[in-house]
Amino acid sequence: MKDFNYYAPTQVVFGASSEEQTGKLVKQYGGSKVLLHYGGKSAERSGLLSKIASLLEAEGIACIKLGGVVPNPRLSLVHKGIELCRQEGIDFILAVGGGSVIDSAKAIAYGVPYEGDVWDIYTEAYEPQCALPVAAVLTIPAAGSEMSDSSVITNEDGDIKIGYSNNLCRCKFAVMNPERTYTLPAYQTACGAVDIMMHTMERYFSQDDDMTLTDELAEGLLRTVKNSVFEVLKNPTDYRHRTQIMWAGSLAHNDLTGCGTTGDFATHMLEHELSAMFDVAHGAGLAALWCSWARYVYKENISRFARFAVNVMGVANDFTSPEHTALEGIAAMERFYQAIGMPVSISELIGREVTEQEIDEMVDKCSHRDTITIGNFKHLDSTDMKAVYTMAK
Amino acid sequence: MKDFNYYAPTQVVFGASSEEQTGKLVKQYGGSKVLLHYGGKSAERSGLLSKIASLLEAEGIACIKLGGVVPNPRLSLVHKGIELCRQEGIDFILAVGGGSVIDSAKAIAYGVPYEGDVWDIYTEAYEPQCALPVAAVLTIPAAGSEMSDSSVITNEDGDIKIGYSNNLCRCKFAVMNPERTYTLPAYQTACGAVDIMMHTMERYFSQDDDMTLTDELAEGLLRTVKNSVFEVLKNPTDYRHRTQIMWAGSLAHNDLTGCGTTGDFATHMLEHELSAMFDVAHGAGLAALWCSWARYVYKENISRFARFAVNVMGVANDFTSPEHTALEGIAAMERFYQAIGMPVSISELIGREVTEQEIDEMVDKCSHRDTITIGNFKHLDSTDMKAVYTMAK
Repeated sequence: MKDFNYYAPTQVVFGASSEEQTGKLVKQYGGSKVLLHYGGKSAERSGLLSKIASLLEAEGIACIKLGGVVPNPRLSLVHKGIELCRQEGIDFILAVGGGSVIDSAKAIAYGVPYEGDVWDIYTEAYEPQCALPVAAVLTIPAAGSEMSDSSVITNEDGDIKIGYSNNLCRCKFAVMNPERTYTLPAYQTACGAVDIMMHTMERYFSQDDDMTLTDELAEGLLRTVKNSVFEVLKNPTDYRHRTQIMWAGSLAHNDLTGCGTTGDFATHMLEHELSAMFDVAHGAGLAALWCSWARYVYKENISRFARFAVNVMGVANDFTSPEHTALEGIAAMERFYQAIGMPVSISELIGREVTEQEIDEMVDKCSHRDTITIGNFKHLDSTDMKAVYTMAK
Repeated sequence: MKDFNYYAPTQVVFGASSEEQTGKLVKQYGGSKVLLHYGGKSAERSGLLSKIASLLEAEGIACIKLGGVVPNPRLSLVHKGIELCRQEGIDFILAVGGGSVIDSAKAIAYGVPYEGDVWDIYTEAYEPQCALPVAAVLTIPAAGSEMSDSSVITNEDGDIKIGYSNNLCRCKFAVMNPERTYTLPAYQTACGAVDIMMHTMERYFSQDDDMTLTDELAEGLLRTVKNSVFEVLKNPTDYRHRTQIMWAGSLAHNDLTGCGTTGDFATHMLEHELSAMFDVAHGAGLAALWCSWARYVYKENISRFARFAVNVMGVANDFTSPEHTALEGIAAMERFYQAIGMPVSISELIGREVTEQEIDEMVDKCSHRDTITIGNFKHLDSTDMKAVYTMAK
């Protein structure tokens, strides 16, 4: 196992009554003028936004609203947010929404105290020394941004999507009320479940085979989400199962399920190019790619895939053939994706055939023009990347 | 499920090379003059103490040593530590050792800025508003104090042992090197494993049956410790399995395995009286009591004990009789305790019969002279407490 550093300082306030505490929490963490950052109309329609504003007001905290965050959040809105925060003297950013809103909030938080262009931070041309405090009222369990140190921003100028990680941007607190996820459309619920599971699978598929406790936690989390997603698709207001998915979303990406493992994250990187090019939902993009990635790499560590098949997918162990068990596990995951309405190929994802030219372009970006490899389970160079995209066509 | 608040801000620096970072970590968290708090000679003999002192020195951080912490850490040493910190202008307390040392450090941290007697805080006559920062270099995985908000102190004046919880005393960081646990005697290793498992079992045995993810994490942790303890008793320098136990010790008591559950903690409270009266190891005391507690309360929720039997203890499910399955699980735990050299009765624990008068005295203290009940799985009044102690005789 690898030595590790585990740091998850975000205070999680979880449950049906959790929102009520938002005003007090912002005050406790030192906010006096807040940017209320959000996405589309749903936060307005549901009354959540005005409720949060009232709770802040009750604590004597002023707030300025900035909506309009879209999936694959854009750099242009981040620039706008930074300018607004400076003009208004904002000292705290509260994201109300899902991962895109939180990621956008984190980018604004980095940008306010930095004189240059915040994009420098994402391209790692500049390392931030401070950031405004950020917190979240989570409404979409998926990205895990509420407890993670990462943020992914898309620069429309060139369709470049880059993730950046730094403890500076970890949320001070995250308010999570599972009831707020009742109204998520089935497709978005399923995308979220895929994303949550992938955050843990990216850590689980590792060549380190000696971190039993981390494996046990990862497998337990994966089984839970796999079962609960069916329940919430049947009954969207099932509090118990919405709870499991919401809490799993945070634990899947706060690094708990990666302690002592190297992690892979190749599927995530391949998907970033897909959603940057076609602006598709991240979870759906992951589902479209994963089985192809798995079939391309499983021979690097067959026992790992066999363990996954048995302990997570509930496949019967073929003791005479670990390889058969391993492949059955991948097939079971493919059926799972299909059963929850997720695509298992790029053509299902984008509604047409992907062209070879498009694949080449994605490979070119993902490999930084053939200068880097991605992944650890198997290091993928540009030839491997092309093979995976092609298998997933 | 219950709404919950999860807050585990301690930075964990884990692995064989982790100690090297201690000086830099103290500096990062603002320490300029440190109280190095420890227990007996082993920290000196092993060279750990002088190594830490050098690492601090290399960062320009002065330190004053205060050893002598014993299991069931005493209030008198806490008083001495408080005085020393004031005299020397200490601004950071670094505990080098296990739970007793960390608990003593936390008590000193509360006491330094408080004008009255720090015992007021434990009796809840006074609520602390601040505390010195505390961190830990862990050498004994057991109590979980390195990530918990709690501290247990024994007031020799009346053999009173009281636990107190407050986020103020959470360790800023915890350095954990599994190699430092290689020299732990077998008995202490086993006591630690029992304590770790009990921290999660106290949360698991709950009447809340709807927090699947928490149950999965708890069961995975319990299985891991149960298996790893045998491996380290066979081979004390088994890095892989020492790792599992050490990390499990932190996760078992940082509340991860209690999210959404009510928790019980009756066995812990019954044991506090036992170790206050007989000065026995806490883990051994828990083992001596748990099976009696379990047999006394299991009918309150037979399915919970049946689940534990199958998912943790590996008992075959008797589908025709959940009660039979439940009881087999308790019997399996009893055999497990015996197999790792732990007592399963008070007489095995203290080496003689416990008298009825002694039981009455423990009941009297534990029930605050018959004014409180303990536990939630079943609320135990003084009659119940006496019954459990008597079953465990």
